[in-house]
Amino acid sequence: MKFKIKSFKIGAGKPIVYMNKADAVKLNINIGDRVEVSINKRKSIGIVDVAESYFNPGELGASHLIISELKVKSGDRVELEIVPVPKSSLLLRKKAFCKEYTKKEIDLIIKDIVDDKLTEAEIAFFISGVYHCGMTEKETAYLTESIYKNGNIINWRSSKIADKHSIGGVPGNRTTPLVVSICASAGIKMPKTSSRAITTAAGTADVIESVADIDFPIAKLKRIVNKTNACLAWGGSLGLAPADDKLIQVEKIIHLDPESQLIASILAKKLAAGSKYVLIDIPYGEGAKVSKKGAKKLKKKFKNIAKHFKLKLETVLTDGSQPIGNGVGPLLEIKDLLRVLSRNNPPKDLEDKAIKLAAIILEMIGKTKKGKGQKLAREILDSGKALKKFEQIIKAQNGSLKNLKRAKFVKRIESKSSGNVRKIRNQEINHLARLAGSPVNKAAGLFLHVHKGQKIKKGQILIEIHAESKDKLNQAIRFFKSSEAIEIK
Amino acid sequence: MKFKIKSFKIGAGKPIVYMNKADAVKLNINIGDRVEVSINKRKSIGIVDVAESYFNPGELGASHLIISELKVKSGDRVELEIVPVPKSSLLLRKKAFCKEYTKKEIDLIIKDIVDDKLTEAEIAFFISGVYHCGMTEKETAYLTESIYKNGNIINWRSSKIADKHSIGGVPGNRTTPLVVSICASAGIKMPKTSSRAITTAAGTADVIESVADIDFPIAKLKRIVNKTNACLAWGGSLGLAPADDKLIQVEKIIHLDPESQLIASILAKKLAAGSKYVLIDIPYGEGAKVSKKGAKKLKKKFKNIAKHFKLKLETVLTDGSQPIGNGVGPLLEIKDLLRVLSRNNPPKDLEDKAIKLAAIILEMIGKTKKGKGQKLAREILDSGKALKKFEQIIKAQNGSLKNLKRAKFVKRIESKSSGNVRKIRNQEINHLARLAGSPVNKAAGLFLHVHKGQKIKKGQILIEIHAESKDKLNQAIRFFKSSEAIEIK
Repeated sequence: MKFKIKSFKIGAGKPIVYMNKADAVKLNINIGDRVEVSINKRKSIGIVDVAESYFNPGELGASHLIISELKVKSGDRVELEIVPVPKSSLLLRKKAFCKEYTKKEIDLIIKDIVDDKLTEAEIAFFISGVYHCGMTEKETAYLTESIYKNGNIINWRSSKIADKHSIGGVPGNRTTPLVVSICASAGIKMPKTSSRAITTAAGTADVIESVADIDFPIAKLKRIVNKTNACLAWGGSLGLAPADDKLIQVEKIIHLDPESQLIASILAKKLAAGSKYVLIDIPYGEGAKVSKKGAKKLKKKFKNIAKHFKLKLETVLTDGSQPIGNGVGPLLEIKDLLRVLSRNNPPKDLEDKAIKLAAIILEMIGKTKKGKGQKLAREILDSGKALKKFEQIIKAQNGSLKNLKRAKFVKRIESKSSGNVRKIRNQEINHLARLAGSPVNKAAGLFLHVHKGQKIKKGQILIEIHAESKDKLNQAIRFFKSSEAIEIK
Repeated sequence: MKFKIKSFKIGAGKPIVYMNKADAVKLNINIGDRVEVSINKRKSIGIVDVAESYFNPGELGASHLIISELKVKSGDRVELEIVPVPKSSLLLRKKAFCKEYTKKEIDLIIKDIVDDKLTEAEIAFFISGVYHCGMTEKETAYLTESIYKNGNIINWRSSKIADKHSIGGVPGNRTTPLVVSICASAGIKMPKTSSRAITTAAGTADVIESVADIDFPIAKLKRIVNKTNACLAWGGSLGLAPADDKLIQVEKIIHLDPESQLIASILAKKLAAGSKYVLIDIPYGEGAKVSKKGAKKLKKKFKNIAKHFKLKLETVLTDGSQPIGNGVGPLLEIKDLLRVLSRNNPPKDLEDKAIKLAAIILEMIGKTKKGKGQKLAREILDSGKALKKFEQIIKAQNGSLKNLKRAKFVKRIESKSSGNVRKIRNQEINHLARLAGSPVNKAAGLFLHVHKGQKIKKGQILIEIHAESKDKLNQAIRFFKSSEAIEIK
């Protein structure tokens, strides 16, 4: 049936098609049905919503995604067809019975996720099935390939493209900008794209966003990398592995992140970004995403899957049982980074970890001999080259490291007793920083004055909470007092 | 923050709140976030969508559900607050690890489903977790109680309220109107509420809707039952077990129906409708929802859960390996019903099954002695009382059984070979009828000329496809030819 578009820039996040109720009744279309809207040879799939007003019979509204995909404007005439339940939707049942997917089946599911043919409920069902039944190595490799190929791919002239990735979960674990600055100083290309925080206090993208732009088209990103050897960009709008973005969106809703999905997600993004050398940081321990045993299993799986793609991959298992550095929150973490880079009272745990990771990449690519990486990394850091490189990258991303803001409200919390810091719980610390306003309020977050194992006295400052509003500050203080974020005995 | 409502009757199916992009940015609200809109003491939860046009800063749009819940109109001033992730959302993870829920936890999840605090993706995750890990008997009883108590409950003066239910899946299995007519003739109160088809060709509600109204407020439903001893209504808008409606909506999307969820769903609806005696029909066999072994297990679980609620419950395991009767589709099934009720060439399988089920209810309530139920049911049928009762119910529901429509296009399909009908596959038959237009096009569907085990000759008619459009007819014919809906050997 023919419809006239009534442009309607709503629902920027989802493909929705709005129609008059009378049209819906006439066409036997229900809310939630999938329809295909087409004009010339451009096609777009949307989920129907029915309007009782605003749209007249014969008029069709569409959310921003569809409008831009079809390149239509008000008054354009489009064709609408009902789309039957996609085959991929029926395939989801297979994992409900814990059966193994074929390459073709996985590809169909991933394609339909990219094309918005599957709803969030269906994607949640897919993730949940994968979580409960797991995936074989073969399935995980198929999933990786499918996620990676169904999206943009960046090609580089050089083959010495390196990347690092942390599986996350540890507050303040902001080694990426340091590793990138050190390695890029040594002449390694690191086109680093990062994600925003999902459940933690801040992701690398959130942190860099507090001092520079992070969202670039691929061509601009390439110019930045060609100029500085690196970038610290947000991966979200590059169209690399778009299926992964949608999977993550739903994982965020259901607070679940199955292992094979995690591996496929990370490797697909690296492959799409053109990386040939990849270092994976797997923090383990109490309060981390995995136990030591789990970390070892994960390491093996990463290595096995990487082989399918001839990707040179190293993994490093690190202590993830407490936050790293002092700052937790975008600007507070930038300040930690600058303390390391400018050699001015650096948080030792953050510095040591960054050097350890950078060393592995320097050795992988042959910038130095096996065993000499840490020495080289430290030299680069001490020489001031890494600081200069970081400043250069931030400048190339239209940013500045001057006049870093401090939050309006800061509350220092003192210890009520003397003793040993037994535990600093990652999840509680992440939640606390989020309550204080991180990562949205760039200056919000925490400054940790203590680390695990430290002896402290009654009245000594444990933590500072930084917030931009009194409300958020009080909410965070209340949570801290009721939680056991920092355990002292 | 205060907003001015701009009434916007869109999104009838989901609670959505629309706001200007600038407001969203200012409030750090993202698409998909939950907000609470309130006015005086009325509150409503919605999911945010961001509009780039139509709504000015300070204006708030809301979908129909919210508008009617808040009783607001354009220009009313409301308060908007961000709602944190509900605790129930975090509880969903528990089933991901196959842990047992407490009563309180289940109640929290169900309450939040009813209050629209959980999204479809979260509900899909819940269902999937329950599917993969199962639920204990205790959990299933808690789930039943929670679904039943979080909604409207109908109270009756009499305690002799009976109900029947089929777990479904078998095309043409329209015994409900027959059982209800027979039992109501014998003086049993049967306030029957049914659902629409989820994946089958037609549900009882779809079938009755082809000749009468099915959607009533509770007060009107009670009047119908007090007058005729029964009703054949749609349960959807009565607000009985509303959590169940939302669970079913998502189950439909993910094509999954976990067992404990199925039991809780059925029993909660019966309890909310005030039933004290319940008969559950469990069709089993190839192409049915369960195997014979599965049916026996299900029977035991139904009995165990019913005990928690002092519900008198019988189950009957029936052959579900092929369609029942001849018609599949709303009006075609009505015609089958009338052939049984008017004693005019009745489909024997449908008649026998209806008598068997009615007999159990008649015996349960003591209308006759044990073992005499079938005789009584047949007498009532032969006397014409059941037909009269059916006509009376349809009339009370503003309907008529005169001039039943026939679809515009009918295609008779002949057998290409002689042999035995080995199989008639339920799922293919359901799909075929849906392709032909059932249940939306009331006259659409199938008329089966053969049954399993029947000897047939080449050229003999197997099936008629009834459709209201040439397109749908051809689509169904194509599917039939490529499928093995009817297997002959």
